[in-house]
Amino acid sequence: MRTVSWQDGQVVLIDQTTLPHQERLIKTRSVERLAEAIRKMEVRGAPAIGVTAAYAMALAARQAAAGHPERLLPELQDTRDFLATTRPTATNLFWALDHMMSFARAQAAAGVADLAEAMLAEANRMADEDVAINQRLAEIGAELIPDGSTILTHCNCGPLCAVDLGTAMAPVIYAHQQGRRVHVYTDETRPRLQGAKLNAWELANARVPYTLITDNTAAYVMQQGKVDMVMIGVDRVAANGDTAAKIGVYGVAVLAHYHKIPFYAVSPLSTIDMAVASGQDIPVEQRDPDEVRKVNDTLITMPDANVVNYAFDVTPHELITAVVTEVGIVRPPYKERFESIFAEAGEMP
Amino acid sequence: MRTVSWQDGQVVLIDQTTLPHQERLIKTRSVERLAEAIRKMEVRGAPAIGVTAAYAMALAARQAAAGHPERLLPELQDTRDFLATTRPTATNLFWALDHMMSFARAQAAAGVADLAEAMLAEANRMADEDVAINQRLAEIGAELIPDGSTILTHCNCGPLCAVDLGTAMAPVIYAHQQGRRVHVYTDETRPRLQGAKLNAWELANARVPYTLITDNTAAYVMQQGKVDMVMIGVDRVAANGDTAAKIGVYGVAVLAHYHKIPFYAVSPLSTIDMAVASGQDIPVEQRDPDEVRKVNDTLITMPDANVVNYAFDVTPHELITAVVTEVGIVRPPYKERFESIFAEAGEMP
Repeated sequence: MRTVSWQDGQVVLIDQTTLPHQERLIKTRSVERLAEAIRKMEVRGAPAIGVTAAYAMALAARQAAAGHPERLLPELQDTRDFLATTRPTATNLFWALDHMMSFARAQAAAGVADLAEAMLAEANRMADEDVAINQRLAEIGAELIPDGSTILTHCNCGPLCAVDLGTAMAPVIYAHQQGRRVHVYTDETRPRLQGAKLNAWELANARVPYTLITDNTAAYVMQQGKVDMVMIGVDRVAANGDTAAKIGVYGVAVLAHYHKIPFYAVSPLSTIDMAVASGQDIPVEQRDPDEVRKVNDTLITMPDANVVNYAFDVTPHELITAVVTEVGIVRPPYKERFESIFAEAGEMP
Repeated sequence: MRTVSWQDGQVVLIDQTTLPHQERLIKTRSVERLAEAIRKMEVRGAPAIGVTAAYAMALAARQAAAGHPERLLPELQDTRDFLATTRPTATNLFWALDHMMSFARAQAAAGVADLAEAMLAEANRMADEDVAINQRLAEIGAELIPDGSTILTHCNCGPLCAVDLGTAMAPVIYAHQQGRRVHVYTDETRPRLQGAKLNAWELANARVPYTLITDNTAAYVMQQGKVDMVMIGVDRVAANGDTAAKIGVYGVAVLAHYHKIPFYAVSPLSTIDMAVASGQDIPVEQRDPDEVRKVNDTLITMPDANVVNYAFDVTPHELITAVVTEVGIVRPPYKERFESIFAEAGEMP
C-alpha cells in the first residue's frame, strides 16, 4: 500500500515510527494531527512529507469556516504557514504547500465547496504523479547499476520515503526486478535508525539481498573493495548541486570520494530548489537531544549528557558524481544543466 | 578507583556494561569469570584487557592443582591459550599473557607457592606500570593540545580503558587539569556505544567540556571547522604504523585527512606489535550480529535482519599524523622509529 493516501474521507499514513515491529496506520481528518505526524517523523522522507502536506491543505479547505473563497484564502495561508514550521530542511514540504496555495488562488472563483474538492483532487494527482516520477527515477537510475553491483545507501529512501517506490532504492529494486544481481549495504542511520528500521524491512520485503551495518562500518566495507557505488535520497538540492540530506551523507560522500567510488544523489525535480544558490543557504534542522540520548525509549547515556543532534548535513556538489532525476541523469556543471531542464519544463520550482 | 585491581584476594573490575546508569563491581577469584568478562566486554580497552589477563594468570597459579613448578607450567600454558581465545584483535592481551608465561618460566625454580605469589606481585606491578605509562602518555600527548583546542575522539579510551587515566583522553584530561581550555566531540560509537556510555560519563566526571554526537555527525562538525585534532586509543599497531582500532576509526581518519585535521593515535609501547608487518596481518574480530540488531536489549530491526558486525578496522599508517607513546611522540617513518625505540629499550614486544 501507499505510504500516504486518501481513503474514505481520511488521510491514511503508514506510521514509520513503529516499523518493522508493528505495521500501524494513522487515519485522520485533522490538519494538526498531520502536522504532528510530520514533526514526529511518523511520516518522513522528502516526497512523502510533500504529499502529506498537500493532503493537509486539502483537508483545511474542506473544513474551512469561511463561506467565501476570498476569505478562505487567508485561512489557507495560515494553514500553509503553520505546516511550514514542521520541518525546516526538506524542500518538498515548501514546494507542495506553495503549489497548493497557487492552485487555490487560481481556482478560488469556483466557490468554497468546489475549491475544496478541486484541492483534494489536486493532492490525489500529486500523489499519483509522485509514483509516476519515482517509476521514472527507478528506470533511469537503474541504468547506472550493472549486473553484480553492490550499492551502499544511508537513511531510507525506498517505498516508505515517498508515496511509493521511493528514490534512492527505487533504481536498485527495479534493477533487481529486471533480474540483475544487486547487493545493498544499508547504514543503520543513527539517531532515528531509518536504515535498520525501514530500509532493512523494505529490502527484505522486496527480496533484495542486503547487509545492515552501523554507520561507522561504511568506511571499512569501502576499504575492502566491497562497494561499487553510493546511492542516496536527498532533502534539498541547491541550484549549484550542493545537497542537503540525512546527517551522515556528507561523510559517506567524502569516503566515496577517497575510495574513488561514484556517489549518486537520486532526486525528483521537486527536491531541487533553484531559489537557493548553494548549500550555505540551506537551513539545517537540529532536533531534540533525546533522540541521541535514547534509542527508542532506552537511555544510552546520562539523562543530561551534552548532545548536539543535527538532522541533516550538506554535501558540496564537487563530491556528487551525478544527480538522477525523472528527466535524466544530470552530471556537472549542475547549475547550467538544472537551469536548462527547468527552462524546458517551463516551471521553475 | 582503578578499572582493574586486586583487593582482598580477588580481582575487582568495574563493570563497563552497566555504566553510566549503574556503577557495579565484579569481584571474582575465577579465571573463567575473567575470561567471560573480557569476552562480554565487561572489561574492555586494550590496556585494561591486558592487566585483567595478567591477574587471571596469577589466579591460575594460585589455584593450580600441580604441586611442582615443572607440572605447573603446562597448566599455566593451557590457561594462557584459553584466555587468548577471548578477543582476537587487541595486542595487549597476548602481550600480557606471554609476559606472564615468560615470567613464570623464569621464576619456576622458586616452587609453586612462591611462584604464585611472585606472579601476583608481577600482575600488580603491571597494573602500577600501566598507570605510570598512562601518566607519561598524558604529559607527552598534552604537548599536542594548545589552549582552546577541540578534540574529536571515537570509542572510549579514558580512565576506563586502562587501569587508570587511559590513553586517548589522558592527554586531554591532563591539559584540562593544567588549565588549558579544551572541548571534546565524542562519537557515540555504535554498536556498543562506548562513547555515549563511557566517554561522556568519564568526561563529565573529569569536568571536561564535551559534546556527544552520533558517529555520522563527525564529518559535519569537521566540515564546520569545529575540530582541531583527532585523538584515539588503539588496539594494535603494526610495525609499519598501520593501526587496528575500534570500528569507525578508519573512517574518522579518512575524514580528518580530507579536512586536513591532524590525526593522533595514543598507544603505549605494549600495543605496538613488531611481529606484525602491516595491517593486513591483523585479524579483525567479528562479533554477534545481535549487537547491531539490538541496543541494550531493545530490538531496532527485524530479529533475522542480515548484519555484519566488525569490531575493528585498520587505519593505514599514511593517515596517521603521529603516534603518542610513553617515550615520546613518534612521527613517520614509523617502522624505523619503532625499531630504534625497541632497540634502545632492549625488549622487542
